[in-house]
Amino acid sequence: MKSPLASLLWRSLRVYQVFGANTDVGKTIFTTLLTRTAKKLWKDEQVTFLKPVSTGAVDDADDRYDCPFLHISRFAPGVARNTLYQYDIPCSPHSAAIASGRPIPSDDELLAKCRAFATQCATKQGWLFMETAGGVHSPGPSGKTQADLYIPLRAPSLLVGDSRLGGISQTISAFESLRIRGYDVESVLLFKDDTYENYQYLEEYFRKQYGIPVTSLLEPPQKHENPEKDAEAMEKYYDRNDSTEITGQVLKTLDINHQNRLTNLDTMATRASEHIWYPFTQQSLVGPKDIMTIDSAHGDYFQTLAPPSPQTSPETPVLRSSFDASASWWTQGLGHSNPKLTMAAAYAAGRYGHVMFASAVHQPAMALAETLLNGMKNPRLKRVFYSDNGSTGTEVAIKMGLRAARKRYGWDTSQKLGILGLKGAYHGDTIGAMDCAEPGIYNEKIEWYEGKGYWLDYPTILCKDGKWCVSVADGLQGSFGPGGAFGSLSEIFDVEKREANGEQAMYEEYITSTLRRLKDQGRKFGALMLEPIILGAGGMEFVDPLFQRTLVKTVRKSPHLFGESSLSATEAQDPNEWAGLPVVFDEVFTGLYRLGRFTPSSFLGVHPDISVHAKLLTGGLVPLCTTLASENIFKIFLSPDKTDALLHGHSYTAHPIGCQVALESVKEMQDMEDRGEWAWAKSQGWTQASSSQIDVWSTWPRGFVEDLSRQTDKVSGVWALGSVLAIHLRDEAGSGYSSNAALGLRESLGLGRADGEGGPWNVHSRVLGNVLYVMASQVTSDTSVKQLSELLMEGIAGKKQ
Amino acid sequence: MKSPLASLLWRSLRVYQVFGANTDVGKTIFTTLLTRTAKKLWKDEQVTFLKPVSTGAVDDADDRYDCPFLHISRFAPGVARNTLYQYDIPCSPHSAAIASGRPIPSDDELLAKCRAFATQCATKQGWLFMETAGGVHSPGPSGKTQADLYIPLRAPSLLVGDSRLGGISQTISAFESLRIRGYDVESVLLFKDDTYENYQYLEEYFRKQYGIPVTSLLEPPQKHENPEKDAEAMEKYYDRNDSTEITGQVLKTLDINHQNRLTNLDTMATRASEHIWYPFTQQSLVGPKDIMTIDSAHGDYFQTLAPPSPQTSPETPVLRSSFDASASWWTQGLGHSNPKLTMAAAYAAGRYGHVMFASAVHQPAMALAETLLNGMKNPRLKRVFYSDNGSTGTEVAIKMGLRAARKRYGWDTSQKLGILGLKGAYHGDTIGAMDCAEPGIYNEKIEWYEGKGYWLDYPTILCKDGKWCVSVADGLQGSFGPGGAFGSLSEIFDVEKREANGEQAMYEEYITSTLRRLKDQGRKFGALMLEPIILGAGGMEFVDPLFQRTLVKTVRKSPHLFGESSLSATEAQDPNEWAGLPVVFDEVFTGLYRLGRFTPSSFLGVHPDISVHAKLLTGGLVPLCTTLASENIFKIFLSPDKTDALLHGHSYTAHPIGCQVALESVKEMQDMEDRGEWAWAKSQGWTQASSSQIDVWSTWPRGFVEDLSRQTDKVSGVWALGSVLAIHLRDEAGSGYSSNAALGLRESLGLGRADGEGGPWNVHSRVLGNVLYVMASQVTSDTSVKQLSELLMEGIAGKKQ
Repeated sequence: MKSPLASLLWRSLRVYQVFGANTDVGKTIFTTLLTRTAKKLWKDEQVTFLKPVSTGAVDDADDRYDCPFLHISRFAPGVARNTLYQYDIPCSPHSAAIASGRPIPSDDELLAKCRAFATQCATKQGWLFMETAGGVHSPGPSGKTQADLYIPLRAPSLLVGDSRLGGISQTISAFESLRIRGYDVESVLLFKDDTYENYQYLEEYFRKQYGIPVTSLLEPPQKHENPEKDAEAMEKYYDRNDSTEITGQVLKTLDINHQNRLTNLDTMATRASEHIWYPFTQQSLVGPKDIMTIDSAHGDYFQTLAPPSPQTSPETPVLRSSFDASASWWTQGLGHSNPKLTMAAAYAAGRYGHVMFASAVHQPAMALAETLLNGMKNPRLKRVFYSDNGSTGTEVAIKMGLRAARKRYGWDTSQKLGILGLKGAYHGDTIGAMDCAEPGIYNEKIEWYEGKGYWLDYPTILCKDGKWCVSVADGLQGSFGPGGAFGSLSEIFDVEKREANGEQAMYEEYITSTLRRLKDQGRKFGALMLEPIILGAGGMEFVDPLFQRTLVKTVRKSPHLFGESSLSATEAQDPNEWAGLPVVFDEVFTGLYRLGRFTPSSFLGVHPDISVHAKLLTGGLVPLCTTLASENIFKIFLSPDKTDALLHGHSYTAHPIGCQVALESVKEMQDMEDRGEWAWAKSQGWTQASSSQIDVWSTWPRGFVEDLSRQTDKVSGVWALGSVLAIHLRDEAGSGYSSNAALGLRESLGLGRADGEGGPWNVHSRVLGNVLYVMASQVTSDTSVKQLSELLMEGIAGKKQ
Repeated sequence: MKSPLASLLWRSLRVYQVFGANTDVGKTIFTTLLTRTAKKLWKDEQVTFLKPVSTGAVDDADDRYDCPFLHISRFAPGVARNTLYQYDIPCSPHSAAIASGRPIPSDDELLAKCRAFATQCATKQGWLFMETAGGVHSPGPSGKTQADLYIPLRAPSLLVGDSRLGGISQTISAFESLRIRGYDVESVLLFKDDTYENYQYLEEYFRKQYGIPVTSLLEPPQKHENPEKDAEAMEKYYDRNDSTEITGQVLKTLDINHQNRLTNLDTMATRASEHIWYPFTQQSLVGPKDIMTIDSAHGDYFQTLAPPSPQTSPETPVLRSSFDASASWWTQGLGHSNPKLTMAAAYAAGRYGHVMFASAVHQPAMALAETLLNGMKNPRLKRVFYSDNGSTGTEVAIKMGLRAARKRYGWDTSQKLGILGLKGAYHGDTIGAMDCAEPGIYNEKIEWYEGKGYWLDYPTILCKDGKWCVSVADGLQGSFGPGGAFGSLSEIFDVEKREANGEQAMYEEYITSTLRRLKDQGRKFGALMLEPIILGAGGMEFVDPLFQRTLVKTVRKSPHLFGESSLSATEAQDPNEWAGLPVVFDEVFTGLYRLGRFTPSSFLGVHPDISVHAKLLTGGLVPLCTTLASENIFKIFLSPDKTDALLHGHSYTAHPIGCQVALESVKEMQDMEDRGEWAWAKSQGWTQASSSQIDVWSTWPRGFVEDLSRQTDKVSGVWALGSVLAIHLRDEAGSGYSSNAALGLRESLGLGRADGEGGPWNVHSRVLGNVLYVMASQVTSDTSVKQLSELLMEGIAGKKQ
């Protein structure tokens, strides 16, 4: 999906998609029965049949099954019917579309047409049955299989089972292919073949495994050679009361399901407000109307319950597409409900479930460890420690770093050690991770919080009024003068050249003098901990990479500022030995292509001794974290004494599902990079493949970013890097978490468009005080970026006339 | 699987299982080609064909395809062949088995026979092709579909695709059904039908999606009416060089895959020891030979690489079944690779992926919250907070409890608050959770650890020399005399009767006097935090339930011992208002049926104000934790100020996969209870359905447990409850973590049996100091329990003569 497409749900219209367990299993007969019976039972309603893609010439149809369209018109006379794409050649839609010589419709086009048709149907109370072609995985016109193609419509489905020899297997497998793509199959229908009795087996199977009803109907009469007699026989078949009764029962159940689905969606926010305790949320400010009910998600978009308004009527779409502009708290990389990740998760679940990991190893954990260590291209990193999320992974890093420093400098356990970090740092919400952040309004009320460390000021980067500027924070002002402006991001990231120009000198002086002062105060540190380039939760602050590079290099050459090192001269020769302090990079947010590169440490040109990776690690599917470390730090924990070990471990450590999904995600993103799939983004004014510029780019066009920054009455600055766009809004009352400056923009994004080609869509964004950010995934399309850019610019500059 | 069954892997024998995308797709022709060609290319080796279940009478076979057995013998003359179950009726194995009137083989029997046959084959270097019947989900003799049935064999597989109309869909769906069960499909084979050209589409599809080769072969000749001419034509077909060449290429790839799989398994432990940093492990004591390589897992058993020995030869089984006696660090409940849980995970992945949860809601999270709140039957609990694991869930509980107490008693943030707990408590490895545990050898070396609280002594339960005894710890000795012996666990758990007898008086006195002393010392507490009944990581200590009940009741009636309460008289009337201290139950290990009940708080007859649930919550699949809390505690965090909120949240909070899997797991366990599936366990001397006894039972037979406890020279005591059996071994040097007393028993369990019907098996157990525990899952069979009990008794009492 390149553009937003809202799932098919209206109060007025029950939409059902009919899939077949195989070709030629009777889809059309069942659909005919369902539409006929619906028309009987709901006389005043409109019943519609849609065959989105039909193959086989209508005129030539000499068989009663050859053309569903004709069949319906013959046997279900009161039923409206339509076809969106008609191909004369009677084969799979994919082959027929190619053979037709006509332009092949894109998946987006086809789905938008389906939606447009359903929207029309929804103007009246009624039913819509959409019949697919062939089996569930028969390829659609573009070549994508229908099971994958139709996911975004997320219409509840009916599966016509296979009553023939082998049909049990076909029916279950087809069902599974739908189920693992998130389809709700509400009913399985098949013929009552008394030779194979598949229906008996399947009835029990689907009841026990899924609680899904299986309905079986007598087989249609044998085909008569005389077409008129044949039609008569079919008419009789359709007329049989028992069939109508049974079909009526199916329809009544579907009708109830439709109502239940609506009721569930309508009440969920209220129930949530009564029973959910939300993370990081002041719930007195969040009523049911502020809670977003998510029905499903696909690609970059949630399907959310549209808020009721005075204009709401039964034909108003119930769901709208909401661009997931926080990338689901920064985790999303490969699109929601990506079948590749689903298959990876299911494969590992099927092969292992979870298996315990202490002194054990399994393929996904081993392969992921090797893939990460190779991908980092950091000769220091040799070990992988698994945990469950960025917060726990940070605590692991702290335990590693502090022990290493304590042993090196000969401190006993009574010595209080701190972290050296940056102001506004954030590493997670467990107490140990919180303690790595400086005290502030967001943690000082936490009972056991006790900030342990010192946090330096730092210079930031912003595009202001079209210019890329380095600004110095208040705390630095005494040390060096105001920052300059640069021609491009590439120039800012050319840290070696800037170093050659001596730009780092004032940074180094500030750092060294600070460290000296801290030493004189008797303070002791166990690690330097940084979020490379971007301080995310700290307010989307973009730190001058030269500053972070200088900080790492200065710490490494200044062991004397931390303690009396016990490192021998030989040990100090080891290029992978840590020096000064263990350097920990928290790459939870910034790593694994979020900023466009495998690791953001490559921007700095310095390697950490320990690095932490989560969020995008699993492409946005399940929690998993890895803490990578150098062999020398690992060795510090070796001893004959168990209690010298790194005492950390979670039950689900290195759970195979997480590892397999991460392996798939990381490899997929590496492949995307190798295949040059982000060339379109780079070419938006960022870098040319041919140039010798530093390779820095964003999903967001450079021109757009710079234009935004020129809205100086509203915007104090903007930056974009990788898939992240951060807009710092002006706030007279000052920036920070208490600011409400971004709320207006957030609201206008939340309104979105009511008239999108694929139905209504909006943007679900999160703000951090005066900063509104929009985070794309690694698969966001240029189309989406254009639509979002327009909406953003309107939200800031006001609607274009 | 009721008994252990080792997967089919030998160095001498390449075993491949041949599945069909449908019935009648040419499985036998491909298998014939593969066996013929294998025999040509590996002349000195034995090539074998096995049809485990064959339907259709051998003698009557008048068609060249009707009987694979005859077909192979005719067209692949040098190939050995066998059938394990032959049914004359030509239909699905399931129906044929019923119609035969003969006893229907159980799945275990069938698999054991397959394995026995393969074991014989493995005595010679060679190939074994096992051909399944019909499609992948065609039911086997017992009715279980073959895709589910053959999982434990975990033979690498070949899928014969469907070249007919609709075959693309059939082939992909069949593949997916195998893949999500953990099968490694190494090759897809199908006929080159030039009308539908499925092979072209499928070649590209499988290459792009999975990197799996698709091989297509010319179709066999049309059937000739004259059987001899037909046989000639087939012979010619098989002889075609091109087919042999292509088939030879397939075989060469399979041969390389087989070698690669072995090399990967053989080297994995070494690679792990070089690159994995293990949780909670002193790695100087763990070499490659101590690392268990897990190839897969099914039911209660891992498939692990058997250690090499001097006796190892090419025909030695490479894998053995290892009973997962730590239930994969206490998480496993519904068996490894349970297809229901896999489907739940895949459905949620397909429907949502992960979606952010702050001020949002989705069906799995909402339904799970409602299911848990209902299941607890605790009127106090109204809110669910999601996090990632027991450690983070405990930190959430602390943040809740401490804030509530601080507000109630009017303490400011400078007041140091502690936790009131039990000695040996353990709540996780993040710093905040560690701080809830008293200082000891396992945390005192952690740099930021600082135990915050007071930990009480407590009386323990053990079966000693056949008697169920309450023993008092050293710290209690001054307060009350030695504990007594009880007739049964039920008597011990009859806390109301014991209370009526006044047995709690001495407990209450000890608790009250301790609290008074602490108050006099000026100590302040924010929560009472307990692991109900069993202190797991603290050494599998079984606490007298009457003591924990008394502790909760005493704390609740003693607010004056904690501070000056600001609670109004009206508020105090609310039966759901917390009193004294917020009572937190850490049910991470003991909850959700681990001890036989939904919640262990029902044993105590008191309700917590906050409870924490993880591990079994997801049945043993993915990390997820819920912290449940009362509405009154929730309300304390409401204010107009964002910073008064509960400041905790993880990126993957309430990830849909975890919630959906948990929903499925919890409901499945509730259903098992409702269906009385543990009746066999209860009837092992524990409780009778008809009796008025307290319902306390274990997977482990009471007689066996009491017999174990009579081995008084080795055993100091034993207990069993729910699925847990804990054996406290005598150690002259004293108990505790440094003890090695349990290592001998662990080793003897590790040797296991070389001669099991289903191949070699052993027990992978974990010890906690002098305690060896064996933790079954909620689906462990009586057969497994019997086998394990025998092995355990032998390990302790010495081998029976």
